[in-house]
Amino acid sequence: MLRAWDTNFQPAFTTGRPVYVQISELLANEIRRGRLLPGTALPGTRELAKQLGVNRKTAVLAYDELLAQGWLESQHTRGTFVSSRLPESTPTAFAPATDRPGETPGFKWQDPFEPELPGAAVPGALIFNDGTPDARLAPIATLASAYRRVLQGRGRRNQLGYDSPLGSLPLREALSRMLNQDRGLSTTPDGICLTRGTQMALYLTAHLLIKPGDVVAVENPGYPPAWQTFRLLGAELAPVPVDAEGLCVDDLEQLCRSRPVRALYLTPHHQFPTTVTLKAARRVQLLALAARYGLAIIEDDYDHEFHYDYQPLLPLASADPHGVVIYISSLSKLIAPALRVGYVTGPAAFVEALGRLRALIDRQGDTVLEQAVAELIEEGEIKRHARRAHAEYHTRRDTLAQILRQLPGNQLDFVLPAGGMALWVKFQDGVDLERVAEELAQRKVIITPGSRYYLAPPATNALRMGYAALTPQELTQGVEQLGAVLRHYRR
Amino acid sequence: MLRAWDTNFQPAFTTGRPVYVQISELLANEIRRGRLLPGTALPGTRELAKQLGVNRKTAVLAYDELLAQGWLESQHTRGTFVSSRLPESTPTAFAPATDRPGETPGFKWQDPFEPELPGAAVPGALIFNDGTPDARLAPIATLASAYRRVLQGRGRRNQLGYDSPLGSLPLREALSRMLNQDRGLSTTPDGICLTRGTQMALYLTAHLLIKPGDVVAVENPGYPPAWQTFRLLGAELAPVPVDAEGLCVDDLEQLCRSRPVRALYLTPHHQFPTTVTLKAARRVQLLALAARYGLAIIEDDYDHEFHYDYQPLLPLASADPHGVVIYISSLSKLIAPALRVGYVTGPAAFVEALGRLRALIDRQGDTVLEQAVAELIEEGEIKRHARRAHAEYHTRRDTLAQILRQLPGNQLDFVLPAGGMALWVKFQDGVDLERVAEELAQRKVIITPGSRYYLAPPATNALRMGYAALTPQELTQGVEQLGAVLRHYRR
Repeated sequence: MLRAWDTNFQPAFTTGRPVYVQISELLANEIRRGRLLPGTALPGTRELAKQLGVNRKTAVLAYDELLAQGWLESQHTRGTFVSSRLPESTPTAFAPATDRPGETPGFKWQDPFEPELPGAAVPGALIFNDGTPDARLAPIATLASAYRRVLQGRGRRNQLGYDSPLGSLPLREALSRMLNQDRGLSTTPDGICLTRGTQMALYLTAHLLIKPGDVVAVENPGYPPAWQTFRLLGAELAPVPVDAEGLCVDDLEQLCRSRPVRALYLTPHHQFPTTVTLKAARRVQLLALAARYGLAIIEDDYDHEFHYDYQPLLPLASADPHGVVIYISSLSKLIAPALRVGYVTGPAAFVEALGRLRALIDRQGDTVLEQAVAELIEEGEIKRHARRAHAEYHTRRDTLAQILRQLPGNQLDFVLPAGGMALWVKFQDGVDLERVAEELAQRKVIITPGSRYYLAPPATNALRMGYAALTPQELTQGVEQLGAVLRHYRR
Repeated sequence: MLRAWDTNFQPAFTTGRPVYVQISELLANEIRRGRLLPGTALPGTRELAKQLGVNRKTAVLAYDELLAQGWLESQHTRGTFVSSRLPESTPTAFAPATDRPGETPGFKWQDPFEPELPGAAVPGALIFNDGTPDARLAPIATLASAYRRVLQGRGRRNQLGYDSPLGSLPLREALSRMLNQDRGLSTTPDGICLTRGTQMALYLTAHLLIKPGDVVAVENPGYPPAWQTFRLLGAELAPVPVDAEGLCVDDLEQLCRSRPVRALYLTPHHQFPTTVTLKAARRVQLLALAARYGLAIIEDDYDHEFHYDYQPLLPLASADPHGVVIYISSLSKLIAPALRVGYVTGPAAFVEALGRLRALIDRQGDTVLEQAVAELIEEGEIKRHARRAHAEYHTRRDTLAQILRQLPGNQLDFVLPAGGMALWVKFQDGVDLERVAEELAQRKVIITPGSRYYLAPPATNALRMGYAALTPQELTQGVEQLGAVLRHYRR
């Protein structure tokens, strides 16, 4: 009963893809090109297999695929035919096509006023910024396995449909246990909202807290991405100084006395960017102040795991009888920046509202990733990785400190931080760090000048040098470049 | 040189986890419990292996793990010792712990006014809502493999660090090719912003477009999650009727004449919820109108792939010389709701601003998933899956239509839609669909009453019945329940 194409059909199969898929695509192409017309009878699978030199099972699979895609139809005992209704349609233009939409929209809109689109990381560059984790240490193989298990339904659950906007329940349960056991908090799984990293936690929190014109107090120096988020939502920022004991709570109190302050954004564990820990007495003072003035404290505990002292302080959220602390943390610093799993906990009514807001922004998190991470936590893999990373970052901190101290010229100074992923390195006033950073960037060494972390003067002449993402060898290379630029600068 | 613990240390290894990990945990526990003190010398790996009845390589791995975690330290030729600085610290409370934060925050905030926190799907329920895809058909195994490849760096790239907020470049390239070839658009990869599903695309777009008090025109009936997002950002919604040819553009023009309208939200391909396609003449009329009034058209092409006619119309964005169309689409309807990959394209300056806004909301997308999906597109797997799903949904549409027509009582009527994932089923006025939906919910059959899709009266007495996520057997079961409830109702 064949068939225009039987003599010409001599496929060359490639490796790497199933042969039945390749056969189905070749046949679909013949149909698409009109060489096999609707209603044409096809050979039986035995005959097709013989003709193509494949085994019969492959021919059966190819027909099944073509039947599933709608290219063929099966007519009971009569056999297999090219479908009378093909699965491809020809879209019709209803008007002349536009060559290319212009740069400028034909409508009005408001630009988000932040000027720069952050780029992807420059390949091969040594990046000393911020204190990002070293993704090369991440437990990739175990994560990939867990992800696959969840996706294929071999995890404890299989959830590819819609889920709660608060995030996957197994991960909220695991985090709640961890927060209660390790960080002295008192949470329930329903009192935690998972987010895509710290950034979304900040955004959601700010969205609920801030009305245009509200005052938000921030550490100075501090964390600009948080400031940008607050400003986007209409906040006026009020800088509060930071000294060797952390945020100057007396200055905050003075601010609160002078005008209503909606919220304080705080990084008490290792202050960003100075790495200072907020002392216990100031913590007590701050909590009392917040309760008195109805001030929300947004506690960003972004790198909790990485503390090298034996007695780190528990978070503010562990001692919050008045419900003034919104506690934000993240697993992204622990695993890799691309795996964005953060969370918020705080007063129950507030967290529930975060979920409702989130439903309007992106409906829900990446539930597959969330469940995979929950499995890693329960299997102890996250804790195991955290210890390894902790030991490694401890070494890297000491390495960076040592090689910086060996730089000639006495142009810099720093206090060895009790934890975190970066050093705050102060330079002599004469050193123009803007120019140093520019010259370093040309050598593919990226360090943001510390002035960028100041909302208001006076700015300390400093660099924040993240050490966690770089091996001791890379740290040495980077500091050699810094030394060369500083020498060059001295001439 | 041993050692307090050597006689008591008789571990029972469990299956499923590497033995070296179990040994390292047991030893870490001995150290934690103080039975092995800092400075204690450990046996050599040969001796340890003998003592535990494991092979020497396992003992070496266990020591390596403990060294990496910081429990042990190696002193050159002298051997291995319990570390003098242990990797665990004891956090200190700085104030009495809070028993449990209250329900009510100790600060002021604004509730997002949408009342309901969407829940997770009810297991075992037959859900006829909305037209969600059938995640059971998704190419899970190939996706899991691609994800693993990307995560382990065996994909074309390995990106676990920060990436562009516009999203992973390989996926933007793949989508740009697809949009230009299949949908008549004229895009570049930099003119596409990836998002987490349609919902985030809507949110970002609305955030840039809408100032409090702005009027946004919407289809009536229409898509409430979009309305909620527009309202959250301060929009006043203006309903525009929909008839058998789609949006009534004359009514929109009348609205534009009477007051400034910032934007129109539109689902022209298969109108949500009525499934009607916007006719060609109205499309031409609408584009001219938008250019005249500076109206932004938000074109939500949420289920583009699923059209069963031979000549679907190209999107509005294919014929937009004035730069008035913001085109939103998604792969979530194609794969599974939990895999949230949507995108926006439109005038270049607008898309660039979307990226800057997105950086403040969640920094970047799930770059691993994005790269995995890009690989599936390039390998043809997505197209292959789309065809299979297309054929299956086509059958399901016809099945649902057939069994609904067989229901006795002539209480319902519908027009067979040219595409999409749902039927819009009208009922006689006497049928109280609110009560029908309630009774069905008790039988674990979920259908939202059509009245929920109306912003303004008069509402058609209708149900939107999604068929894509349900097998023919499940559709039959669901409709049997509907029939039973309708009979029950007649009594």
